[in-house]
Amino acid sequence: MTTRPRLNELGLSTGKKTRLHRILFEYGLRNGTALFLPYDQGLEHGPRDFFDNPASGDPAYIMRLATEGEFNGIALQIGLAEKFYWDYAGEIPLILKLNGKTDIPSDAEALSPVHATVEDAVRLGADAVGYTLYVGTPAQELDFAQFQVVRSDAERLGMPLIVWAYPRGSAIEAKGGKDSYYAVDYAARTASELGADVVKVNFPHPEKRTGVKEPYGDEFSSQEAIDAVVRSANRTLVLVSGGTRAGDDAMLEKARQSMEAGGTGLIFGRNVWQRGHDESLRFVDSLKNVLAKYPS
Amino acid sequence: MTTRPRLNELGLSTGKKTRLHRILFEYGLRNGTALFLPYDQGLEHGPRDFFDNPASGDPAYIMRLATEGEFNGIALQIGLAEKFYWDYAGEIPLILKLNGKTDIPSDAEALSPVHATVEDAVRLGADAVGYTLYVGTPAQELDFAQFQVVRSDAERLGMPLIVWAYPRGSAIEAKGGKDSYYAVDYAARTASELGADVVKVNFPHPEKRTGVKEPYGDEFSSQEAIDAVVRSANRTLVLVSGGTRAGDDAMLEKARQSMEAGGTGLIFGRNVWQRGHDESLRFVDSLKNVLAKYPS
Amino acid sequence: MTTRPRLNELGLSTGKKTRLHRILFEYGLRNGTALFLPYDQGLEHGPRDFFDNPASGDPAYIMRLATEGEFNGIALQIGLAEKFYWDYAGEIPLILKLNGKTDIPSDAEALSPVHATVEDAVRLGADAVGYTLYVGTPAQELDFAQFQVVRSDAERLGMPLIVWAYPRGSAIEAKGGKDSYYAVDYAARTASELGADVVKVNFPHPEKRTGVKEPYGDEFSSQEAIDAVVRSANRTLVLVSGGTRAGDDAMLEKARQSMEAGGTGLIFGRNVWQRGHDESLRFVDSLKNVLAKYPS
Amino acid sequence: MTTRPRLNELGLSTGKKTRLHRILFEYGLRNGTALFLPYDQGLEHGPRDFFDNPASGDPAYIMRLATEGEFNGIALQIGLAEKFYWDYAGEIPLILKLNGKTDIPSDAEALSPVHATVEDAVRLGADAVGYTLYVGTPAQELDFAQFQVVRSDAERLGMPLIVWAYPRGSAIEAKGGKDSYYAVDYAARTASELGADVVKVNFPHPEKRTGVKEPYGDEFSSQEAIDAVVRSANRTLVLVSGGTRAGDDAMLEKARQSMEAGGTGLIFGRNVWQRGHDESLRFVDSLKNVLAKYPS
Amino acid sequence: MTTRPRLNELGLSTGKKTRLHRILFEYGLRNGTALFLPYDQGLEHGPRDFFDNPASGDPAYIMRLATEGEFNGIALQIGLAEKFYWDYAGEIPLILKLNGKTDIPSDAEALSPVHATVEDAVRLGADAVGYTLYVGTPAQELDFAQFQVVRSDAERLGMPLIVWAYPRGSAIEAKGGKDSYYAVDYAARTASELGADVVKVNFPHPEKRTGVKEPYGDEFSSQEAIDAVVRSANRTLVLVSGGTRAGDDAMLEKARQSMEAGGTGLIFGRNVWQRGHDESLRFVDSLKNVLAKYPS
Repeated sequence: MTTRPRLNELGLSTGKKTRLHRILFEYGLRNGTALFLPYDQGLEHGPRDFFDNPASGDPAYIMRLATEGEFNGIALQIGLAEKFYWDYAGEIPLILKLNGKTDIPSDAEALSPVHATVEDAVRLGADAVGYTLYVGTPAQELDFAQFQVVRSDAERLGMPLIVWAYPRGSAIEAKGGKDSYYAVDYAARTASELGADVVKVNFPHPEKRTGVKEPYGDEFSSQEAIDAVVRSANRTLVLVSGGTRAGDDAMLEKARQSMEAGGTGLIFGRNVWQRGHDESLRFVDSLKNVLAKYPS
Repeated sequence: MTTRPRLNELGLSTGKKTRLHRILFEYGLRNGTALFLPYDQGLEHGPRDFFDNPASGDPAYIMRLATEGEFNGIALQIGLAEKFYWDYAGEIPLILKLNGKTDIPSDAEALSPVHATVEDAVRLGADAVGYTLYVGTPAQELDFAQFQVVRSDAERLGMPLIVWAYPRGSAIEAKGGKDSYYAVDYAARTASELGADVVKVNFPHPEKRTGVKEPYGDEFSSQEAIDAVVRSANRTLVLVSGGTRAGDDAMLEKARQSMEAGGTGLIFGRNVWQRGHDESLRFVDSLKNVLAKYPS
Repeated sequence: MTTRPRLNELGLSTGKKTRLHRILFEYGLRNGTALFLPYDQGLEHGPRDFFDNPASGDPAYIMRLATEGEFNGIALQIGLAEKFYWDYAGEIPLILKLNGKTDIPSDAEALSPVHATVEDAVRLGADAVGYTLYVGTPAQELDFAQFQVVRSDAERLGMPLIVWAYPRGSAIEAKGGKDSYYAVDYAARTASELGADVVKVNFPHPEKRTGVKEPYGDEFSSQEAIDAVVRSANRTLVLVSGGTRAGDDAMLEKARQSMEAGGTGLIFGRNVWQRGHDESLRFVDSLKNVLAKYPS
Repeated sequence: MTTRPRLNELGLSTGKKTRLHRILFEYGLRNGTALFLPYDQGLEHGPRDFFDNPASGDPAYIMRLATEGEFNGIALQIGLAEKFYWDYAGEIPLILKLNGKTDIPSDAEALSPVHATVEDAVRLGADAVGYTLYVGTPAQELDFAQFQVVRSDAERLGMPLIVWAYPRGSAIEAKGGKDSYYAVDYAARTASELGADVVKVNFPHPEKRTGVKEPYGDEFSSQEAIDAVVRSANRTLVLVSGGTRAGDDAMLEKARQSMEAGGTGLIFGRNVWQRGHDESLRFVDSLKNVLAKYPS
Repeated sequence: MTTRPRLNELGLSTGKKTRLHRILFEYGLRNGTALFLPYDQGLEHGPRDFFDNPASGDPAYIMRLATEGEFNGIALQIGLAEKFYWDYAGEIPLILKLNGKTDIPSDAEALSPVHATVEDAVRLGADAVGYTLYVGTPAQELDFAQFQVVRSDAERLGMPLIVWAYPRGSAIEAKGGKDSYYAVDYAARTASELGADVVKVNFPHPEKRTGVKEPYGDEFSSQEAIDAVVRSANRTLVLVSGGTRAGDDAMLEKARQSMEAGGTGLIFGRNVWQRGHDESLRFVDSLKNVLAKYPS
């Protein structure tokens, strides 16, 4: 039994509700939870992420994996969406990532520039758009400005807006870092205040306390932290990301705690495809076993 | 085994393919065929169509019927879509009808004025738009002009365009009438030539020969006629409409011939809901039994 | 106990719900019913309507009457709104009428041209806009085209759209006239299909049967007729207009039947102000006594 | 007897007067004063503000509190307005905050980026918009530039513009800080000079004199200071904010002095909801007791 | 036998496919490979590049060389295209370079400003446009922003988009430099992720390992490196550039390895025209001998 808000309690317009319903109830486990496959690492980190499993560098391989694994959606940048989604058009929901950047320049004043529009997403038949918001960056004026355009277009076109809410930049580094409970909690709230329909967060680390604002310096369990993050997101659905590849048991426990907290789902990329094909699908099954316990 | 063209042979953009795939393979029988429920008669004919089954005048009743009957889509005008689709958003595909008219003034120079846009359809999460083209009307200049805007917007936004291709107007009346094989065949071709992705036609009546152009004055079986109509539509998928309510056996035979000819599906309104609830669903089942024999 | 739909069942956007809530629950009887004062007769009929009570020709007199009578709103054309609403801004909701015409030319191809915009209404702080749709007019192409702009702007700006749904034109005259049950029922449905939030109709006359479509030629009581009209309007709230001045008892009985049918309120102009000041307010009280019996 | 300017003396357009009348006379005490509930702290400070009363992190709880407490309005960022206002649409006026920021990066060159528009406010049925102007910030070019767009849109759409006039930035810190009489007085005047209809100020601290411009280095009572601030605002209505939570008696005395000075109302957030539900409402009652003594 | 993707596997729109087909199968060797002549060095480096062969400074000479050498296309900036392409219009495909810069200022925050539009390219009858993307530059926000406009226009107008994907800027210099395998591989991927149809890369140097991200610090042969780069580009066709003039045997071996890896062609400028006319054509023949071995 979950405390996750239901679709008809979120204040959604008809178009947003239609598309989120499709993602949550017509694909994947069809039980109101979601497992997304993000595949923007080729831009965000470069091809180095594909060396562990060279096949993973081929978007066609990933598209196949996403449909075989019956994910609720795949997140792509515009270029790969244009080239690879047609083959599976409609078989799996597309989340078009509207901004992104390379990790070559410094992140001190991080900003993820927009290079595609909500209208591109409509044109490609996507069921949601993704936007990376670098919460706390000194470049927040530019970030909020380009976010406004995206939010407003998404509103006008009935397109669900998923915010990758990532604490980032020099000030965050000085206040506990990007994974601290303080930073993740603030990021989730910021996404909700600015108009995200769904927010993707990293799992919070309450033990990272150096420099955080009070009362985040107190002792909290990871369950308490993720509970609070989901509450801070209120009527914004929460997806927890996998991040860099880690041990399977630890990942599954994070997944369980996230769903227990009222999260809507998981968005796991490298943890899925940085291993062989069959092993990937077995891990996907483990994640789905968790999700199956938390129907809406 | 059908001669119906497959989705990836139609020259569709990614967005159109996504949405048509969804309609044809993620809803209804999920076998590439379609059964649509049109519900624009309240505007086209007025509430008189609802007197046989007063419940049918309530759009909420019809929405429920459409989901219970697991149709592949419901066609609504903008007003009812705004008011009633939210409750079932994403549970059944929406086809937003973009034009329509009352039947109060004369049909001699029939024109169906546009009162909603492709962008409205996007905003509401619709999976297709519908446009009534009055093939042969003396007002065809206005008709083609407003159709161009719709086609172009549909192209730009990746929205499948379903054309209600209706022969209409004084000249058609003088050349065999709106149901003649001549008229229906010409209408199907016109829709394809002007850019329809899907065309809705009435079942052709080859016996209506008075005034038709040669060689439609020859003898043709109804199977020959519908075969030709589907060929005329070429890479435009064909839906055959039920029209005014008629005997069930005759309707099912028309349905069978349409699918045999390579049609993609059926669009039946009054034949479905101008009877009690349970009887409606039983008739839907009969139609689906026909469709089940013609998977893609 | 009424069958009137509640505000949160109408599929309203936040802005439309806000403004309709204000009209229905923060002004007038504050019980979910509405009594509107229309004052566009100076344009629609000319000053002849003011001869019975010359004071009524002064918009300032009418503004005062509207606030003294605690109406739920007053409907004005743009010119009078610009000149007279400031004095009472916010004390009574303004419905800005966006189209209108003189009655000097023939009504055979009636069309009510737009001369103000939804943005004008926003600028003036109006809580709704009004549009006259001439259902059945041979000019329906132009009517629907300008209505689309109004509907779309109202949607974008969260402004409730009240449609004066008036059967009109030569074809209507040939089919039972503008007050027939057939015509009023069709008009209510048309407004709902095209996207009205509220529809203003004349009280239907089932005894006008000459030339009407079947089954409207059958016998119906006036209660049966108004019941059906409200059902045809479905999730569009119904206001019944007073029309030309008639006997008070007859008017009150029409009001009672309208509310009994599930109507939301009344819109009475000439019946109110074509008499002296105090008598006007007494009649308003009688109407409110009816409305008080039908809280939401 | 107050020296507060009356609505019809402010040079307001019809739409602005309509909406301000509604806020001041149709909600709350309905006597021309105002008590607003600001709820943007989740963005401005992060969820840490909610730890004292965890329920306060839930916007639904705050919406309920705002209606139970019969506030004259609630100030929300776009995200929470989209998700939570529908439930109470029209029951309490909405002030849409158009800009905002996190407090993670440095405030030395403070700028509050715009992320929503006046048109969003119209769409949501808001009765006013809010804009944070960082008076004295080195980034004032950007601040004034985006303010111009907001002011101009507010003018065009008849939307009252409430300016959060906050002295901020390195130069202010060097000249007595953000709460000095000098800074608050200058901020109130700046808002009025640039076009605010209403200005929100912090209560001035005449004892903060280090580095202030002459003659603010002289001795002033707090009553003299707030009197002057209200005079500086001239025909811009003044709201005094509560700021960080402090002792109730001190807050009430500040409230009394503010109203005595001719202020129009109070805007108290953390002082209200950083305590239990019933205690919140009791404190609201104390504030209203003050306001009741200063009718327009 | 090549692993190069075929034109109908790339997800191209009709217009893009038409124009790429023309380039690859109606000009040059007509076998699916391409040899392009870039001639933008006059802007990028200044006339110093023409001193070795003064005739090469005359665009008319280069146009003649391009047609005599039967190249698959010539890449020009707008000014030279306006002045010199008319003479050979249609005899050789034109690639209009849309951005470019002088090399006078520092490259630390490199950005190549746009000075022509896709519509210019259409107007001139070009068969593709070229855009220089400086992957890794600290100015990537501006770069991505102007690229979005180009990509979107190219999409709308069916114009193939060739990206000159050049690692550049201070961060790249600190991480192995612009020719490292790491940098070239990341650049190829970035072009594909952002929506290039064709990408021009420099030949990668796996021996440049100082400061590169893991695992690019390992040992790789140049064949392994170019193989990986082509895989990273996936469905984006790869052109390998000649760069500064080098020994012919080395260039031919690079060409061979590029085609072996699945490249589509070569884009050689200075290596071609920084020598006498006849020698230029002989070198072109050598390059074509390589291409002839790799038909599609």
